[in-house]
Amino acid sequence: MPFIASQMKKVFFTPGPSEIFFTYNDHMRVALRQQIGSISHRSKDFESIFEHTTSQVSEVLQLPPTYRIVFAAGATEIWERTAQNLILETSHHFVHGAFGKKFHQVAQNWGKDAQLVNIENEFIPQETNADLIALTMNETSTGFQHHADNLEAMRKLNPNALISLDVVSAVPGMKVNFDKVDSAFLSVQKCFGMPAGLGVWILNDRVLNVAEKVGNKSYHSIPSLIKFADKNQTPSTPNVLGIYLLGKIAEDMNRRGLQAIQSEINYKAALLYQTLENHSKFSIAISEKKHQSKTTIVADCDDGNTRILDYLSKQGMILGDGYGDKKDQQIRIANFPVHSKEQVELLCDSLEKFR
Amino acid sequence: MPFIASQMKKVFFTPGPSEIFFTYNDHMRVALRQQIGSISHRSKDFESIFEHTTSQVSEVLQLPPTYRIVFAAGATEIWERTAQNLILETSHHFVHGAFGKKFHQVAQNWGKDAQLVNIENEFIPQETNADLIALTMNETSTGFQHHADNLEAMRKLNPNALISLDVVSAVPGMKVNFDKVDSAFLSVQKCFGMPAGLGVWILNDRVLNVAEKVGNKSYHSIPSLIKFADKNQTPSTPNVLGIYLLGKIAEDMNRRGLQAIQSEINYKAALLYQTLENHSKFSIAISEKKHQSKTTIVADCDDGNTRILDYLSKQGMILGDGYGDKKDQQIRIANFPVHSKEQVELLCDSLEKFR
Repeated sequence: MPFIASQMKKVFFTPGPSEIFFTYNDHMRVALRQQIGSISHRSKDFESIFEHTTSQVSEVLQLPPTYRIVFAAGATEIWERTAQNLILETSHHFVHGAFGKKFHQVAQNWGKDAQLVNIENEFIPQETNADLIALTMNETSTGFQHHADNLEAMRKLNPNALISLDVVSAVPGMKVNFDKVDSAFLSVQKCFGMPAGLGVWILNDRVLNVAEKVGNKSYHSIPSLIKFADKNQTPSTPNVLGIYLLGKIAEDMNRRGLQAIQSEINYKAALLYQTLENHSKFSIAISEKKHQSKTTIVADCDDGNTRILDYLSKQGMILGDGYGDKKDQQIRIANFPVHSKEQVELLCDSLEKFR
Repeated sequence: MPFIASQMKKVFFTPGPSEIFFTYNDHMRVALRQQIGSISHRSKDFESIFEHTTSQVSEVLQLPPTYRIVFAAGATEIWERTAQNLILETSHHFVHGAFGKKFHQVAQNWGKDAQLVNIENEFIPQETNADLIALTMNETSTGFQHHADNLEAMRKLNPNALISLDVVSAVPGMKVNFDKVDSAFLSVQKCFGMPAGLGVWILNDRVLNVAEKVGNKSYHSIPSLIKFADKNQTPSTPNVLGIYLLGKIAEDMNRRGLQAIQSEINYKAALLYQTLENHSKFSIAISEKKHQSKTTIVADCDDGNTRILDYLSKQGMILGDGYGDKKDQQIRIANFPVHSKEQVELLCDSLEKFR
């Protein structure tokens, strides 16, 4: 076992799993003392936890009041549940990288007529004839981020289609207008700063009609998830401890205020982009400025990423490598709510000194 | 929020989620210090964790060397994955209570020709013409437990069928001969004394052929789960922290020794059954002695369970109520590895004093 307690606490700038939120360990201690791991998911105590977590997450995401939150094991499960519940026949996937592409693959594997459009740089809103349109707010593999206007434009051009939005590494690091989409989902190991093992699925009223028409009968079908959520419960035993901790972290974020969190994200992103742009060894991967992600900064390295990753790792800073065929060429830097201004400034100082 | 730290630490005798294993909190502290929640599931560190956990769990369950372990969100997911991967056309479910019945329902919902046989008291091994036979080693809802010989007898009578065994609340509290079955599964919130959110699926070599023939294409199909497990990985981001902690708890159990754990379970079960049998207010729910569960003791209450549950709750002991239509009539007492002799003796003393 290589888990020898290191003397130096590392800072994880990896784009999920990432650094753990700074209040997480304290909330865990309280949860263990209060024996949250032992309570039944059919108890009143659990219903209170469910109610608390969904209302705190709704607040931090500024969800419209009719939108519901249900839980799954993670975003990968939600791709599959979306394909099982919300695609009558055809889906249309606008893809900016590996994660959008994987969702398309999941829909195809589930037997749907799933169309894929690769977007290289600029996203141009367009009409489609699909039942469901899949967009990725922030593509964690490439650092592409949608401009907020795109959601509204897509909605206007496709009033009858359902819009599914991947917000995995986007919220609550950036503002998303959820009223422009019908289904959205995330995993907690990104901007919420938690260990993996819990997915959050946001659903509006329109999805239930479609899901009932499609008629999937899984224990995690949308009608089943919603039926239980309306009682502050889940269809099967969930990650109770994870749901509790998510609620506490969302509460902390609400106390701080979404605006403070997001303006800090913007400041840190500006600093990171400036540092990388001014450095002779790096160039920003996404050329269109308005599509450069605020939460996942991706840069090409002049001659591979081995030296820079190693250089920073020795200073206790763990960056993400590139994704897929960019594995050895790019660096990916998570800029999540957990990463403090001071940590990012330190990282930028180190980047500047790198030769 | 009702989570006001109680002065009195409770002891959960509920049959899962149950009492948390006594080393869990310490392992959690170490995990947080070592930043296990931040590591990537594609890293060498994670591969070491996966390897450690699967080898420790294999040891504590005494699995045959060719059997593999893969992970899911919980037993409910594994029911669905079993229906998706291991039933060509027909399944045959021997049902002793609510959980066996739910598995049957999942197989039916997935469009399989799923036959159900309700077993009232005695289980008589028999031939079937099904592709998959579903047995429940320990039915958590009723306290029925299979005699070990039944597995061998079923295997002999049905050499060509796959046998799926629900060991959810059985192992490692009791010995199971896994070489008599092809697929077995559990959730960690029972005998492993962990919070919910992780399922363990045990598979032999025979299942892969069937799964490939059935051809399910989910990210959690058996071929996909096994392909990644062979690299000590998982198809999608798993509950990394849960997998780490399960390995540490299994390691503790191996250090103690399976025989010591199981003989203590037997002693505590004998004490509980004796106490309940000798009490005028209770009668054991399962009449056939050889089918009385060692890990889930279920008793009928003379005039409802409200008074006894309340009486013990005031002493800090939380028992399970009845399941389904027995909700108000029965008590269910978990007798898991975490429950110490002293705790069970104290519970029996209190039960004796109850009038």
